Amino acid sequence: MLAVHLEGGAVAVKRRAVPKRKPGFALVRVLVAGVCNTDLELRRGYYGFRGTPGHEFIGVVEEAETRALTGKPVGGEINLACGACEYCARGLGRHCPRRTVLGIVKHPGAFAEYLTLPERNLHIIPAGLPAEEAVFVEPLAAACEILDQVRIERGTRVAVLGDGKLGILIAQALGAYGAEVVHFGRHKAKLKLGGAAEQRLAGAKPPKMAFETVVEATGSAAGLRQAVAMTKPRGTLVMKSTVHGQVSLDTAPVIVHEITMVGSRCGRFEPALRLLKSGRVTVRPMVHGEFPLAEAGRAFGRAAERGVLKVLLRP
Amino acid sequence: MLAVHLEGGAVAVKRRAVPKRKPGFALVRVLVAGVCNTDLELRRGYYGFRGTPGHEFIGVVEEAETRALTGKPVGGEINLACGACEYCARGLGRHCPRRTVLGIVKHPGAFAEYLTLPERNLHIIPAGLPAEEAVFVEPLAAACEILDQVRIERGTRVAVLGDGKLGILIAQALGAYGAEVVHFGRHKAKLKLGGAAEQRLAGAKPPKMAFETVVEATGSAAGLRQAVAMTKPRGTLVMKSTVHGQVSLDTAPVIVHEITMVGSRCGRFEPALRLLKSGRVTVRPMVHGEFPLAEAGRAFGRAAERGVLKVLLRP
Repeated sequence: MLAVHLEGGAVAVKRRAVPKRKPGFALVRVLVAGVCNTDLELRRGYYGFRGTPGHEFIGVVEEAETRALTGKPVGGEINLACGACEYCARGLGRHCPRRTVLGIVKHPGAFAEYLTLPERNLHIIPAGLPAEEAVFVEPLAAACEILDQVRIERGTRVAVLGDGKLGILIAQALGAYGAEVVHFGRHKAKLKLGGAAEQRLAGAKPPKMAFETVVEATGSAAGLRQAVAMTKPRGTLVMKSTVHGQVSLDTAPVIVHEITMVGSRCGRFEPALRLLKSGRVTVRPMVHGEFPLAEAGRAFGRAAERGVLKVLLRP
Repeated sequence: MLAVHLEGGAVAVKRRAVPKRKPGFALVRVLVAGVCNTDLELRRGYYGFRGTPGHEFIGVVEEAETRALTGKPVGGEINLACGACEYCARGLGRHCPRRTVLGIVKHPGAFAEYLTLPERNLHIIPAGLPAEEAVFVEPLAAACEILDQVRIERGTRVAVLGDGKLGILIAQALGAYGAEVVHFGRHKAKLKLGGAAEQRLAGAKPPKMAFETVVEATGSAAGLRQAVAMTKPRGTLVMKSTVHGQVSLDTAPVIVHEITMVGSRCGRFEPALRLLKSGRVTVRPMVHGEFPLAEAGRAFGRAAERGVLKVLLRP
């Protein structure tokens, strides 16, 4: 099969053996995969990565122990958990300390013609949901994770900072849930894709102590500092985007205003699939490019361009 | 009356008029006051402070609108709230944006023979509780605030970092509540005052991802970074001590492990008074000096010495 291989900053497409399915695993033929910012970072050598990336995908089950899965279109949760530790017992395999992660940590990823995943990671895609929309399930699940972690009353005003892919999905997900989203970003066109009731070009002076709940999705240290300033006393700041390296932060307002800062990462697929199926989120306009797997190098280049949102790969 | 006056780093004791009681306020004759780290910082000019500091005190009500208060020994909550805003309506006058703060923000403090406070801020000290123990009510309330903000099951292992005054009170308060406290510090003698079931000299390598709940009370950026490393995935880190200036922090583990960081400041007096009265916390051994008000300069000097815990002033 063909598979992307990242090493030393280069994106190569190589011939590989189709991976062997271990007990409890399914073999999945990839239909479409999405390029995420994490993939661009893996290319730059973050986490010392070398191998096949890709963790956003939709595929068809070719082989599985569970007969009902065979032939079905599926997405897959990306954390391969041990199934035996205290986190797994609590249904939090996403935090299993022994986990590997599809296309990120010690498990070959989805930028390939085939991948394997434990059957329990797979979710059948509802009929009628096209693969190029369903492929947003993983980042949308990360957006929905906020609602699993933080209590947001319907009708609450929530500030979302950042109009990148994740910020747009968060604005849509929280809006679909019933929050009154105020979306701050730097680009009118991208803000429009978030569909928030209120869209504001981020200025130098964000409104101070104005929101009970603030979601930070800018990926910048300045964004995190602004988010702290915008949060009301006793309010909640959801930290959704990783800022690489050390962030310089004044902790005094966090303590004086007793702000709760909640780190937030991957989420469950179920609510994200429901949202996609319901049509209450709109992801198609976020697709800014599609490339065959053999042209993965061009796809990575396109995904790294300024202003480009989602780029898809098709094996 | 005599009152301490801070200005330009100097500690002076001056003659002042006894403050006038406004409607709804009580006039309190101060019996004893405690020097807090904040007072040392005010001396150094933090917050551009100039005036009479002091916010930990016990006194006797000399004049009040509510007759039952007159002659009673009282402590007082330090935030003077407007009583009309959304925070005041929620019983969170501590976060009232229009508040002044006794001895810190625009309201003369307790290092004086007399002070005034709104009657609703006052708490009568239970009979039999000596003033030099009751004077710990304010910092102990700040320790108890943790239990108002974070759900800690009895029997849970909680790490407390820091063996200064606040760390010691936190270790005692959480221990009295029923948590299994593991107290990390740099001084065996101070750790002993915390009375924790497990006392550990903090080493270079703290146990990683070991605690569901971690309380940071070291006041140092290094302590905060250690606290993040010690917190289990999906665990809670209570930020109890202000680190001055910018803290350099890697946010990646906060997000990847979905850690909740909770800023925590002042607390309600009721649970602290109950704890002091019950004898389940021991504060006397923390008193490392007592000075008459006229010798406030020496008291500030003593309080700033390495290893010294609480210093008391007696008008």
